Amino acid sequence: MRAMSPDELEMRLRQIGANRYHRLHPFHKLLHGGKCTKAQVQAWALNRYYYQAMIPVKDAGLIARCPDSDIRREWRRRLIDHDGERKGEGGIARWLMLTDGLQLDRDYVVSLHGLLPATRFAVDAYVHFVRDKTLLEAIASSLTELFSPEIISERLEGMLNNYDFVSSQTLAYFSQRPPQAERDARFALDYVKANALTAGAQDSVLRALEFKCDVLWAMLDALYHAYVAPGHIPPGAFAPPQGDRQ
Amino acid sequence: MRAMSPDELEMRLRQIGANRYHRLHPFHKLLHGGKCTKAQVQAWALNRYYYQAMIPVKDAGLIARCPDSDIRREWRRRLIDHDGERKGEGGIARWLMLTDGLQLDRDYVVSLHGLLPATRFAVDAYVHFVRDKTLLEAIASSLTELFSPEIISERLEGMLNNYDFVSSQTLAYFSQRPPQAERDARFALDYVKANALTAGAQDSVLRALEFKCDVLWAMLDALYHAYVAPGHIPPGAFAPPQGDRQ
Repeated sequence: MRAMSPDELEMRLRQIGANRYHRLHPFHKLLHGGKCTKAQVQAWALNRYYYQAMIPVKDAGLIARCPDSDIRREWRRRLIDHDGERKGEGGIARWLMLTDGLQLDRDYVVSLHGLLPATRFAVDAYVHFVRDKTLLEAIASSLTELFSPEIISERLEGMLNNYDFVSSQTLAYFSQRPPQAERDARFALDYVKANALTAGAQDSVLRALEFKCDVLWAMLDALYHAYVAPGHIPPGAFAPPQGDRQ
Repeated sequence: MRAMSPDELEMRLRQIGANRYHRLHPFHKLLHGGKCTKAQVQAWALNRYYYQAMIPVKDAGLIARCPDSDIRREWRRRLIDHDGERKGEGGIARWLMLTDGLQLDRDYVVSLHGLLPATRFAVDAYVHFVRDKTLLEAIASSLTELFSPEIISERLEGMLNNYDFVSSQTLAYFSQRPPQAERDARFALDYVKANALTAGAQDSVLRALEFKCDVLWAMLDALYHAYVAPGHIPPGAFAPPQGDRQ
């Protein structure tokens, strides 16, 4: 196997996004197309909360195993983005404005009691991957951010237009994210292009991005199976009151 | 919270099995009731292979963090059961006789290339749980074995009677398991009853068994979503040839 040029590697990474990013998932299309019930939007927000809440843990796991001060400093911005400068600020707090706006009890959301086990397994797999794989793979697994500005703008527009229970204030999370995601993705892409120089390293980078796409895809699979296909909510997970399911 | 008696604890554990064990999952009913296509049985065997293959890794993880020679020695039997005394013996080898009998290419099965990501996340969650939680919780999470002899006898009978592509030789795994499972479950149950003496410890034991039930349930959810509900095989996972899907 010969090594690719950095630009070829970028092209292959973008191909993975084009084929495997969760923008292609049927649940995404239902959500943005206004085809979800309120209960389904609640289930999505409740489950996705765990992903949001674990992102700084994942990023601290990367910083904790990184010997390079420049990278640690750069990556630290992600902690600030998600945990904020003070209580009530940052991405996690903004996500809770969304679950509040969907009339989910905040204590219930934060307790994780209604979480689908499959959501927990997928998110924890991501946290462990970043903690245990090479630094290059850990950084590469963040590259789904390359594709997120587009999905976020679809989500913002689709959800505002299609659901009367959603307001631009509840969606504050999404209006803040794209510039952060673009900055972070640019840094990670530059790092990967500069550091994955052998065929083996480049392959590990591609596999890491596929892995991350699998995590996001599996989260939507679990939501679809539990809350769109009828009758498959697993024991113990969030069960909307009967009247809200249509 | 007051502590329960050991027998009350056992009753509560058995209740969890009665309510949450994967014997209640719709995929289990399809599988044993002869309602699965051959491709669906293949997908089940292929995905479950990863669970089987990781069981000795999980058990070694328990032994590796256990300070008690008596428990380590007892638990070592599980390694022998699954890895065998020599190549070609043991539970994993017998599982491969099942996938062979279903005409799955052995290299493909062992490569894990066709695995559902959700299977990997669920199984890895179990391995990490046993490695990272308390020894009591790690032992308690094995207690699904209390309920497995019954499911195995249903499986054996249901599959032999209902599928012409299944023979008793391909099902050798299941005929060996029940006495091992009964012995192992008895040891783990006695340990838990003797060592979970405070309300907090007993609660952690109940949560550990629920967690393990969630792992098994999520594996069948993923199979059902991908291979029974139409059109949801995630990118990259085992995709049966079109003609085999009916």
